[in-house]
Amino acid sequence: MSSTLVALLHGPDQPGLVARVAGWIYERGGNILHADQHRDREAGIFFQRVEWEPLAASGSGLSASAEAFQVFAASLGMEARLTSSDHRARVVVFVSKADHCFHDLALRWRAGEFSGELAAVISNHRDLEPAARGYGLPFFHLPVTADTKAAAEAQQLAKLRELDADLVVLARYMQVLSGEFLQQLGRPVINIHHSFLPAFAGGRPYHQAHARGVKIIGATAHYATRDLDEGPIIHQDVTRVTHRYGVDDLIRLGRDLEKRVLAQAVRWHLDNRVLAYGNKTVVFD
Amino acid sequence: MSSTLVALLHGPDQPGLVARVAGWIYERGGNILHADQHRDREAGIFFQRVEWEPLAASGSGLSASAEAFQVFAASLGMEARLTSSDHRARVVVFVSKADHCFHDLALRWRAGEFSGELAAVISNHRDLEPAARGYGLPFFHLPVTADTKAAAEAQQLAKLRELDADLVVLARYMQVLSGEFLQQLGRPVINIHHSFLPAFAGGRPYHQAHARGVKIIGATAHYATRDLDEGPIIHQDVTRVTHRYGVDDLIRLGRDLEKRVLAQAVRWHLDNRVLAYGNKTVVFD
Amino acid sequence: MSSTLVALLHGPDQPGLVARVAGWIYERGGNILHADQHRDREAGIFFQRVEWEPLAASGSGLSASAEAFQVFAASLGMEARLTSSDHRARVVVFVSKADHCFHDLALRWRAGEFSGELAAVISNHRDLEPAARGYGLPFFHLPVTADTKAAAEAQQLAKLRELDADLVVLARYMQVLSGEFLQQLGRPVINIHHSFLPAFAGGRPYHQAHARGVKIIGATAHYATRDLDEGPIIHQDVTRVTHRYGVDDLIRLGRDLEKRVLAQAVRWHLDNRVLAYGNKTVVFD
Amino acid sequence: MSSTLVALLHGPDQPGLVARVAGWIYERGGNILHADQHRDREAGIFFQRVEWEPLAASGSGLSASAEAFQVFAASLGMEARLTSSDHRARVVVFVSKADHCFHDLALRWRAGEFSGELAAVISNHRDLEPAARGYGLPFFHLPVTADTKAAAEAQQLAKLRELDADLVVLARYMQVLSGEFLQQLGRPVINIHHSFLPAFAGGRPYHQAHARGVKIIGATAHYATRDLDEGPIIHQDVTRVTHRYGVDDLIRLGRDLEKRVLAQAVRWHLDNRVLAYGNKTVVFD
Repeated sequence: MSSTLVALLHGPDQPGLVARVAGWIYERGGNILHADQHRDREAGIFFQRVEWEPLAASGSGLSASAEAFQVFAASLGMEARLTSSDHRARVVVFVSKADHCFHDLALRWRAGEFSGELAAVISNHRDLEPAARGYGLPFFHLPVTADTKAAAEAQQLAKLRELDADLVVLARYMQVLSGEFLQQLGRPVINIHHSFLPAFAGGRPYHQAHARGVKIIGATAHYATRDLDEGPIIHQDVTRVTHRYGVDDLIRLGRDLEKRVLAQAVRWHLDNRVLAYGNKTVVFD
Repeated sequence: MSSTLVALLHGPDQPGLVARVAGWIYERGGNILHADQHRDREAGIFFQRVEWEPLAASGSGLSASAEAFQVFAASLGMEARLTSSDHRARVVVFVSKADHCFHDLALRWRAGEFSGELAAVISNHRDLEPAARGYGLPFFHLPVTADTKAAAEAQQLAKLRELDADLVVLARYMQVLSGEFLQQLGRPVINIHHSFLPAFAGGRPYHQAHARGVKIIGATAHYATRDLDEGPIIHQDVTRVTHRYGVDDLIRLGRDLEKRVLAQAVRWHLDNRVLAYGNKTVVFD
Repeated sequence: MSSTLVALLHGPDQPGLVARVAGWIYERGGNILHADQHRDREAGIFFQRVEWEPLAASGSGLSASAEAFQVFAASLGMEARLTSSDHRARVVVFVSKADHCFHDLALRWRAGEFSGELAAVISNHRDLEPAARGYGLPFFHLPVTADTKAAAEAQQLAKLRELDADLVVLARYMQVLSGEFLQQLGRPVINIHHSFLPAFAGGRPYHQAHARGVKIIGATAHYATRDLDEGPIIHQDVTRVTHRYGVDDLIRLGRDLEKRVLAQAVRWHLDNRVLAYGNKTVVFD
Repeated sequence: MSSTLVALLHGPDQPGLVARVAGWIYERGGNILHADQHRDREAGIFFQRVEWEPLAASGSGLSASAEAFQVFAASLGMEARLTSSDHRARVVVFVSKADHCFHDLALRWRAGEFSGELAAVISNHRDLEPAARGYGLPFFHLPVTADTKAAAEAQQLAKLRELDADLVVLARYMQVLSGEFLQQLGRPVINIHHSFLPAFAGGRPYHQAHARGVKIIGATAHYATRDLDEGPIIHQDVTRVTHRYGVDDLIRLGRDLEKRVLAQAVRWHLDNRVLAYGNKTVVFD
């Protein structure tokens, strides 16, 4: 496979955008492999994902193509995020004590399912240190208490910068990240919530679901934002339950859901298929 | 098929209930066809559905068997609801203007999918009168306005008693029934809510779902109670949506969900498979 | 909504196709609303669906645009099928005795879910004549026996030409159409098979499924071809069953599946989203 | 939790079976926790799963209760399989090179999801030896070639007897077990087939599925029998695919299906919920 560029674009809708983007690439010798677009008619926003092989002979390489494209997109009033297939995103996983999502991510990564690298594991507990090391992953124990939260977040930020993290995945990390942390990080953070949001936001969602007597439970992967459980939803899935299922059964079934939903969201993100805007996402699958 | 009895029982859990119920039936010459039970361990409640063929030679017939069983159940501290397969429940459908759930129920009834009869249609609008008559169903137009609500409910109650309704189905009936109405009716009322409750309770749930950017929408059939959208859930189902779906698409896809979920809930209810307790249900499927 | 054109294209893959198609439309003042494409890498085929608003002021109108596009597509070595949103496709439904798929199609058509018109119903039995007339649809009774099959197909062909049918839908029509009929018709025919093909091809698939003890049953909508049950699959769906389900239950549950799967396939076809090639389809959903 | 007994019964149907089984247990001081039954009306067979707490004070203990029940069941013409909750079944996993099902089973076992113990891993390759040892599991490398198959099966049999295996799980073990092996083993063997059987039996099912252009793929867990891919199906699940998915995508998505379906089948089997008869199963879930 030769190198490709993926651009995720969005901006005010106007006639001719599809053709002008395709034309720009074509005129520079690029070959479009995939192009998908979406219009939010209410909001008047145009979204596009386009993937192409730039002209191979181009001495200046991918980064020059990428820069030039960014200038072009701006001339159309659009923001563009460009990624080269040569760049493998660096993913840092935050965990607490539950290990199911972590094992799932690590095994999928080892099986080559992700366009990115697991770079390290950060945890407020030592429980998963052996598991992390078993996969050959650096493990950093950064304890967090109510009193030390600000200091702990400063440590986390420093570590993430040192690790050059492109993406943080909260794999059942049982701490809330502050809005300030998210802002200073400036990189996307994907969280898995163990309910079908917006139902059962907040704590102990399986207990809430059991108390309400629902017949279906779910899990939701979303970008973390300042507003807990309110971030843009990337993926959701559900499974059927009956009156026979106790809270323990919901928790057990939920583990499977959480694994699947989080892994799919991370996969789409790393394939540059997800564009967040407002509290929504466009997922070019 | 010979006549059968179905009992739905519940009461405080105690050792020996399964054997004693089975024994009582066996000693009187009955043959159990199905028996299913459930224990809510937290609440300490035992639930059972048992279906049997009573002794054919019994001169006193089904009603005597049923009465005797009721006395027996009471001696075990249990409430019992008994139904004979010879009794076809009478269902009255409430509609407003939307016709999809109504056609679905009527066509399933005609195809023999329900253990019961559609007895009549009541509506606050005349729109579905021709459709109802097309199926040979009596149609009663009982208009409701904010000012006349109490009087309209009195008319509805009188009509339901006259029709000897065993079950009321709200097939996208766009009016809230008062707690007083439900209490005076004293018969179960099944409603279809066009969201995956408890998410998006209240009005315009598809608009809410679209605004939140969920990736799955749902529908919920529940018994109507005094607390709107809080009644015991009988059945739920969901379907996947993407960023491409506008509110109109959600409404269209939702129609399919609503039809399926409501029909299944009505079917289970008419097969005497549903026991409501608190804000939950046990569904012996 | 202004008028739009939809083109479905396919041909040998080559660099620059996306840009050249987009460029052609743009240069003529058209505005692309949607464009989606697919490459079958093994077969080296490029597929595209593109929908655009042609220049409004264009005196020559849609048909001139369409013709010019066809010439352009041919110059790229591609076959193109063009449809204007002003053209409402004419659908003729073939039925036998089962009515569930027919009612479902008719109700969806009446609810405005299809980009096309139900033009007439043709049947080898008179059973559904009242139902068809109830929807205001012409009904033609063309009996078929083993001996008269050739003559009956000639009658059907003549009727379909008279009706100017764009699409034939076999809504549980229990007769096999000959290869010769399909060839002479020269229009697509969509069939619903009541199993998850290729499992349980041939007759009585629910009986076959029950005998095999499967835990999931399905339905398959496909284009009819000379080889029975071998045509390109457009859509499939499944539902879970258990050991408790007899053949009658499978048939009942299957009706829901058949309705949903057939309606979705017809909808996609009428939206010009389906491209058949070999024994496969590309569905631009 | 006190000890319980689970009986799986089946035999010719006759009136009174439910009551007589319940009565027998009750008279001996046992308390029935769950009882579920099924009638295959065509075949005239009665199936039951009953779980109870025997009288605690009983000096003779569970094994005496179990023996007495077996005698009682025989007196009703029924075969009974009894298991005590004190007995943890010993599971031996056969693998080849693919590791996804193995990791999934091992992680679920470690999370306490199975009523049984992984006792050992047997493989015709050494690839998964480190993974097995990582979970603290004995690993036995028993190579198989076309020439040595009979000898290899003799080795496997000897090893399984030595390990006192109650269940063998073929976790993507890429060898066919001979009918003679299965007969001599005399213990159940669960296999995972990577298709929605009976579609795509035999080799390379994902390639077959891709060639046929299906829109849904599946996986099937079944008991291994002399007839390859023809054994009683325990569980199946499916996932939706599109024209965009190449064979590699089907294989990747299939891994998730295979894991889930195999784990659920093993879980149900170990909970004594599965009764095989003919080429079907009754699953008391």
